[in-house]
Amino acid sequence: MAALKTYAEHASFGGVQGFHRHASSVIGLPMRLGVYLPPQAEHGPVPVLVWLAGLTCNEETFAIKAGAQRMAAELGLMLVTPDTSPRGTGIEGAEASWDFGTGAGFYLDATREPWARHWRMESYLTQELPALLAEHFPVRVGAMSVFGHSMGGHGALTLALRHPGLYRSVTAFAPIAAPTSCPWGTKAFRGYFGDDPAAWAVHDATLLIERGARLPPLLVDQGLDDAYLDEQLHIDRFEAVCREAGQPLTLRRHAGYDHGYYFIASFIEDHLRWHAAALHG
Amino acid sequence: MAALKTYAEHASFGGVQGFHRHASSVIGLPMRLGVYLPPQAEHGPVPVLVWLAGLTCNEETFAIKAGAQRMAAELGLMLVTPDTSPRGTGIEGAEASWDFGTGAGFYLDATREPWARHWRMESYLTQELPALLAEHFPVRVGAMSVFGHSMGGHGALTLALRHPGLYRSVTAFAPIAAPTSCPWGTKAFRGYFGDDPAAWAVHDATLLIERGARLPPLLVDQGLDDAYLDEQLHIDRFEAVCREAGQPLTLRRHAGYDHGYYFIASFIEDHLRWHAAALHG
Repeated sequence: MAALKTYAEHASFGGVQGFHRHASSVIGLPMRLGVYLPPQAEHGPVPVLVWLAGLTCNEETFAIKAGAQRMAAELGLMLVTPDTSPRGTGIEGAEASWDFGTGAGFYLDATREPWARHWRMESYLTQELPALLAEHFPVRVGAMSVFGHSMGGHGALTLALRHPGLYRSVTAFAPIAAPTSCPWGTKAFRGYFGDDPAAWAVHDATLLIERGARLPPLLVDQGLDDAYLDEQLHIDRFEAVCREAGQPLTLRRHAGYDHGYYFIASFIEDHLRWHAAALHG
Repeated sequence: MAALKTYAEHASFGGVQGFHRHASSVIGLPMRLGVYLPPQAEHGPVPVLVWLAGLTCNEETFAIKAGAQRMAAELGLMLVTPDTSPRGTGIEGAEASWDFGTGAGFYLDATREPWARHWRMESYLTQELPALLAEHFPVRVGAMSVFGHSMGGHGALTLALRHPGLYRSVTAFAPIAAPTSCPWGTKAFRGYFGDDPAAWAVHDATLLIERGARLPPLLVDQGLDDAYLDEQLHIDRFEAVCREAGQPLTLRRHAGYDHGYYFIASFIEDHLRWHAAALHG
């Protein structure tokens, strides 16, 4: 049994917000994660909703800022918040940028050295993490969904597109929707994959949908005062491709809202209800 | 007109979470504060609910962690979050402790040098701040309430006890309820007032109630896994004195909850409803 060490626990809305670390065999280093157990978890298995956070965040960011525990307690959902990358890798340059390396794993398995050694977030999230959760928490098997923000919105979309059937539902806040066409994405993909355009394309949600991959009906919230909207996110292109492809998408544009957690908190309830409908259905 | 400079604004639950700074004449230095304007503030004046934060916090802590904007938007309350002390005072020793000096103003006017120069949080909060708010925001005059956490719970209780009629309602989370009898309080009072026990007593909520001061009916939430409960907070003594004095007190003890913002967020809705009933009544 893989060991899990709890480093903090806080009662929250009748449940428990825990933070844990474990030796990840996939990453080859210790990894941290947050797990919110709703009160219903005392009485039996509950569905799992995984949050993938954005650049510079860690396993605590969403738990502290999004205000999601209230609805998770009401709806009986376990909230799981992985970290955004390996940490303490000792790799030169890993801490040099806020948008590449540490805190910027982009939820993929790097193929280029030296990153390929530890940057294996896709395998970690799709293989090791579900098994770890099932071992240590009252997880309802087969009832898992995913959502995320910015880099984590990219992660939610691409992991769900690349692993059909793994997640029952998918939503995103201000996702990096076409990473091969924006500075954040091209910097990350060049670093983690090198210059092979084929490797890039299969981690770009817009291109994946264009090529026929599909998601469950999708909810995306986007603030219109988001400073990254035009250069980094490309939600209009994503929307056009979804329409063309027949991918069901509920895209809500919110005047005045920016890219941060005040925006996320304002609409988090709708996302939890969206996932609960799929997970309890 | 006193100038107010906005350094950040975020749309939040249909309203705006702003952060501002101004030159405080009372403190003699720039001060920062957060103001959440609910959507109702677009159409007319709204009541003000002032949050006093605990040790080490600043004007952003509550805005980020408490999840209060949701209910403030529903109930039409302006949330005001002052900083916890002067900053950048240049006074030797101001940064030496986490529980005294910077971030630890204890919501009083210091009388002992060098602190008396800038540590004038009581006058700031009871005189300058209400006038500043009335100048710059759509404040419903005479409709102000106060609440706080830990050191800020002490602040809410003592400011309301010392300034009858200023606040319509008062609530607290895990307040330092008898500061003259706990290490945090005695360190602060000795530092800010010197060794005069008479000066101490008039800033101790338990002693003030014992001596006849009264508050509106009071709501206090206390976690029973709070690491500071026995040594620093003395809520049992406060409760006994309130009972003896006939001070109405709803004290709720919560098994499993600790001293932090996960605890506060879990019960914040009840506090906002409590204040809204008094402010809209």
